[in-house]
Amino acid sequence: MDSRICDMLGIDFPLLAFSHCRDVVAEVSKAGGFGVLGAAGLSTEQLETELSWIDDHVGGKPYGLDLIVPNKFAGKGEELSEDAVLAALPQEHKDFVAGLLQSRDVDLVGVDDATRREMLGFNRNITPEGTKAMLDVAFSHPIRLIANALGIPPQPMIEMGKAKGVAVAALVGAKSHALRQMQAGVDILIAAGGEAGGHCGSVSTMVLVPEICEAVAAQNGPPVLAAGGIVTGRQMAACMAMGAAGAWTGSVWLTTAEAETNPVVKQKMLAAGSSDTVRARSRTGKPSRQLRTPWTDAWEAEGAPEPLAMPLQSLISEPALKRIDKLSEGGHKGAQELATYWVGQGVGLMNESLTARQVVQAFREDFVTAYERLAKAVGA
Amino acid sequence: MDSRICDMLGIDFPLLAFSHCRDVVAEVSKAGGFGVLGAAGLSTEQLETELSWIDDHVGGKPYGLDLIVPNKFAGKGEELSEDAVLAALPQEHKDFVAGLLQSRDVDLVGVDDATRREMLGFNRNITPEGTKAMLDVAFSHPIRLIANALGIPPQPMIEMGKAKGVAVAALVGAKSHALRQMQAGVDILIAAGGEAGGHCGSVSTMVLVPEICEAVAAQNGPPVLAAGGIVTGRQMAACMAMGAAGAWTGSVWLTTAEAETNPVVKQKMLAAGSSDTVRARSRTGKPSRQLRTPWTDAWEAEGAPEPLAMPLQSLISEPALKRIDKLSEGGHKGAQELATYWVGQGVGLMNESLTARQVVQAFREDFVTAYERLAKAVGA
Repeated sequence: MDSRICDMLGIDFPLLAFSHCRDVVAEVSKAGGFGVLGAAGLSTEQLETELSWIDDHVGGKPYGLDLIVPNKFAGKGEELSEDAVLAALPQEHKDFVAGLLQSRDVDLVGVDDATRREMLGFNRNITPEGTKAMLDVAFSHPIRLIANALGIPPQPMIEMGKAKGVAVAALVGAKSHALRQMQAGVDILIAAGGEAGGHCGSVSTMVLVPEICEAVAAQNGPPVLAAGGIVTGRQMAACMAMGAAGAWTGSVWLTTAEAETNPVVKQKMLAAGSSDTVRARSRTGKPSRQLRTPWTDAWEAEGAPEPLAMPLQSLISEPALKRIDKLSEGGHKGAQELATYWVGQGVGLMNESLTARQVVQAFREDFVTAYERLAKAVGA
Repeated sequence: MDSRICDMLGIDFPLLAFSHCRDVVAEVSKAGGFGVLGAAGLSTEQLETELSWIDDHVGGKPYGLDLIVPNKFAGKGEELSEDAVLAALPQEHKDFVAGLLQSRDVDLVGVDDATRREMLGFNRNITPEGTKAMLDVAFSHPIRLIANALGIPPQPMIEMGKAKGVAVAALVGAKSHALRQMQAGVDILIAAGGEAGGHCGSVSTMVLVPEICEAVAAQNGPPVLAAGGIVTGRQMAACMAMGAAGAWTGSVWLTTAEAETNPVVKQKMLAAGSSDTVRARSRTGKPSRQLRTPWTDAWEAEGAPEPLAMPLQSLISEPALKRIDKLSEGGHKGAQELATYWVGQGVGLMNESLTARQVVQAFREDFVTAYERLAKAVGA
């Protein structure tokens, strides 16, 4: 396919697949798309393992990597002690979570400071030193793209990208962010609409994509990928008609055969409609879109505690959600009710579990059908 | 253009333009699109005047009409006395509005029960008898489409449409609503995403359009128009690539030369970005998307009164907003700050005031450019 992204990344179909699952990454790349490993939360050792596995299984096809390095941490050097962070967690929030779990007979195993201390280990990765160590591992592998999911990529990421010829990408949810990222020197902008799973803004894909494409093109800027709600080839074609160079997708891979999604959540996603998500601060402290369940409902209800700032809220939510996942996979009814995960509104169009390769193929066919539909409309 | 909507409505470009301004309706139809007069709030006499004017100025081109007949009122026969309705308005809400206006030195002329009684006159139009009188006027003119903006059209509308060969259309914000409307017998579905101005759901256009098109096509249902955020031809092309038969637009006409939009609000819209809208219950009691201003901010702030149910909230908001509009047009600074109107996120792409005819032409050209962009991508 003729697209700047295809030239830049050495692929023939400009479908980028974000996944925490290395199998999905390798399969998408082998099928002619471009897999991107979501590596947030991995240690440098784990990252080395995952990338080596992909190198061994991707058949020489190009792939990429996605990290989360919030500006807030990057380069500021401020560092609270673990004790100080843990002491900052309000009892109200801990009690709320305990009450919610107990209301569904879910025990509190691991919902404690020991688990939170482990999680704080991840936060060390997003200090300047931790970031540098992750980047050193990343750039020792033949990655073709490195993305930052939250805010402007740290300067070392941009510099190493330029030095190694690796495209640096960044997600943006507003035109002003896109212009700032462009000035910071990113090679690919990902315009992510408010219907996206995970962290997202409030402007929809249908508006944000043409808005950013126009603003960026006016300054001869980098190619723009469209994201947010895209789970089919017709939506990808729609975004490319509006000026996007391709699509960045995440949710659609969560229900693939390869995905390591909690099987209970996978089934919920296959059954969910497009209205069954909620954009809420209750998971990370920033607005992120998730599958709506009694867990998210409880946080949205009147009288629920106000979510804390990032990264504190995750220290409240993640240990509980980890326990919920664990018990729900074992058949615990109450845990199954509560179980949730990040997903976009496109979940309403995800009704069948396919292999990652089949999804890429379905995108290709649906893209062509969409093009033909438009060609017929204009009488071409 | 090849589209079921073109055949059904006798037009050559499937761009439908909802406007309260008869000039816009006539101009769009004369330019090959299809103007739809928003007639909510008109008396039967006013409706007769407006439609006669359009008949005289549309040059024989087809046009349509949009009414608001909520199910809640249609056919239920319940009728509170005006006194009872006015007595049901909480003092807290009246005081809040008075305080907000006074904070900007806006006086309270007309913000009273006399104005509210006039507004209740409109509510009489949406009783079964009032609806029938409006329909009798409507069907005595050569309309080609009649739409209901909120819920399932009342049975008389559907029956008269069938008898007179006038297409009956309905706006929907969720798949389940689309299926119910289809069973009720509507001829055209309008899938309106959450980025739309005015009343809207929460699912975005990028997801809702393919979701509804797929569900409706599976049952050989009526054609689907896409709505929500669409202010350019590239977005219209995007929606048609996803299966829509055309586009239903509203916001983009508010800044045209012909539109009777408050000039202060028109300038705000031309300057606004896509993030400058808010979906809130504070205007009508149901979620509707509006230009964000200190008026909407005040209603969203902590401690603001909870908006009342429809139609009570309008009796609180409209008299005040009418006064704000009046004074803002006269140059009153405080009123200019507060002034707002319904508009979708597409406002971020509305940066230039054109005539309605120029907007239609811009849509046509941009549509073709979008098609060519896609053709180039697939190598056609």
